[in-house]
Amino acid sequence: MQPLSVTLGDRTYPMHIGAGLLGDESLYAQYIASKSVAVISNRIVAPLYLERVQRAIERAGGRVVPILIEDGEQAKAWATLDHVVDAMLAARCGRDSVVVALGGGVVGDLAGFAAAVYQRGIPFIQMPTTLLAQVDSSVGGKTAINHARGKNMVGAFHQPLAVIADVGVLETLPDRELRAGMAEVIKHGFILDLQFVAWLEANMGKLLARDRAALSHAVRRSCELKAQVVAADERETGLRAILNFGHTFGHAIEAGVGYGEWLHGEAVASGMVMATELSARAGTLRREDADRVKALIALAGLPVQGPKLAIERYLELMQVDKKAADGRIRFILLDGLGRATLRGNLDARLVRESIAAATQ
Amino acid sequence: MQPLSVTLGDRTYPMHIGAGLLGDESLYAQYIASKSVAVISNRIVAPLYLERVQRAIERAGGRVVPILIEDGEQAKAWATLDHVVDAMLAARCGRDSVVVALGGGVVGDLAGFAAAVYQRGIPFIQMPTTLLAQVDSSVGGKTAINHARGKNMVGAFHQPLAVIADVGVLETLPDRELRAGMAEVIKHGFILDLQFVAWLEANMGKLLARDRAALSHAVRRSCELKAQVVAADERETGLRAILNFGHTFGHAIEAGVGYGEWLHGEAVASGMVMATELSARAGTLRREDADRVKALIALAGLPVQGPKLAIERYLELMQVDKKAADGRIRFILLDGLGRATLRGNLDARLVRESIAAATQ
Repeated sequence: MQPLSVTLGDRTYPMHIGAGLLGDESLYAQYIASKSVAVISNRIVAPLYLERVQRAIERAGGRVVPILIEDGEQAKAWATLDHVVDAMLAARCGRDSVVVALGGGVVGDLAGFAAAVYQRGIPFIQMPTTLLAQVDSSVGGKTAINHARGKNMVGAFHQPLAVIADVGVLETLPDRELRAGMAEVIKHGFILDLQFVAWLEANMGKLLARDRAALSHAVRRSCELKAQVVAADERETGLRAILNFGHTFGHAIEAGVGYGEWLHGEAVASGMVMATELSARAGTLRREDADRVKALIALAGLPVQGPKLAIERYLELMQVDKKAADGRIRFILLDGLGRATLRGNLDARLVRESIAAATQ
Repeated sequence: MQPLSVTLGDRTYPMHIGAGLLGDESLYAQYIASKSVAVISNRIVAPLYLERVQRAIERAGGRVVPILIEDGEQAKAWATLDHVVDAMLAARCGRDSVVVALGGGVVGDLAGFAAAVYQRGIPFIQMPTTLLAQVDSSVGGKTAINHARGKNMVGAFHQPLAVIADVGVLETLPDRELRAGMAEVIKHGFILDLQFVAWLEANMGKLLARDRAALSHAVRRSCELKAQVVAADERETGLRAILNFGHTFGHAIEAGVGYGEWLHGEAVASGMVMATELSARAGTLRREDADRVKALIALAGLPVQGPKLAIERYLELMQVDKKAADGRIRFILLDGLGRATLRGNLDARLVRESIAAATQ
């Protein structure tokens, strides 16, 4: 199948989607011939796929420098970044070296940021091994680490040379992670494509049973939708903010319960329910469409209620969210199903009520 | 006087050069009205100039968040970066905030990098308070921190909104730092402008006596020359490498004696003598022009001999320099006085001889 093109001027890159791609050196040989390639992965993914990738890179003429990081959100930290930089310097990686991110969102965010700042920026290739990473972080060029005061507070926009999304690897993904990734797939339907929402309602059973054709379609359509938005607003100055639907609440949930307790997709799922409640209460979405949102999230086995935190705690956590423009909180609302809109200065009462309506 | 324009497409910015500019809010009011402004400075510069800058920003309608870092090269570290990010998050700086770098090269590099990565990048204004920072780091958009394995190994290209270079502040600069800054001024002559070399030979006395008109001319001409090179090669993929004349040796000197023992400009000065020796030995520069290079460096009161390190140590340190392309060391040579050229694969014997000829 033709690769999907993420169109960003001179930073346009191809995204290959299909089964069995990880070991296919022909896909990335053009980028790595005779170069040093730092393959960054974690202790869960490496035993499964590192050897396959390493052999393919070597067949393509590259020199592999494997670098392992810890699994989990806490790896998105200064210390891990320093570990990666140190290993690359020790292995004499230069400005013409390439970074490969082999893993989920954490590996992609960390490895992508390392590539963005190593010797002021070198190229990288994303090889996402979770559904979430395939449909979310592989399109958009966002890289980051976390800070005690908030998620993704330090990072860079750094577009990859290419993305290789092998849906074959999703067969070994734990159920909980598959569902968490589905939250972002569904989100792209809610904010951009009513027809895709209908397709997801009809095919959620197949997707959760890991039907390969269904997964390929879902990943591809989801990335197409996201790529259109990113192409129109690479640096997130306007339109792109709609991709954060559910995320203002979701980030507060992740920070409030402690990173890692809730998976990102789970937090976004219940965050989307809150944002949908807010849309209904603000009058931009009919109640029956709000119910449809909630039903599809439930059908995917995702939480429709946030954790039991005080409402004031939610509000406090959202203040430092990076979408806050000098203190004001802006929200992405659904403007009918399949369309999103950015709103500032909403009545605080509506926000409180929406949180209350969607917490345990 | 008209500001100098550093021409970089949609990242083009003005550079204001003159005396008494630090307190002139009209110069930067357009960038900071009603915004949060993180003014990053150090414990040496802040007592002298922070209040003046803070008042000007407040008159222009900005909210000042002052953040102090340690003085010296060791402040270019992860820990300092975390301190700055933490202070900005605590003060609720958002994506629409602005960073002001008030200080020398260390403050500029660190604050610029903090701006580059804070919430994936926010704008910053350079207010360089040393000659080195005015003529070097204020043009080019290079930001970075150091790593134990090498200088400037982690960083970003991040162009400022504007540069405000107040030559009035050079009157309080220690002699040693004034001379160190002169190394980069001289360098721009050596690699780009024979006429400027002649002007420097004739005016070095005035410059070291801090004649205001002479300093303004030297800063302006130096920045003009550098801006031409940067405009032609923003991401340092080719031509821009000539700005590193003397730096391959210079970085080895700084790392070899321990950062901070030799000032950057002092290391570059003796590095330029080594590179000039290499040019003469490789046949690209006449011996009489090599003598002229050495004489002007001596006239500026700068070292013409590197520290007493083993030649093998020099070579080892240069291997990890980031200009090394997978192990090969490339050198910038003078191709006649006022012109530079990039050469790879030089005879190692010539390199050893050149180091030996210019060490104590």
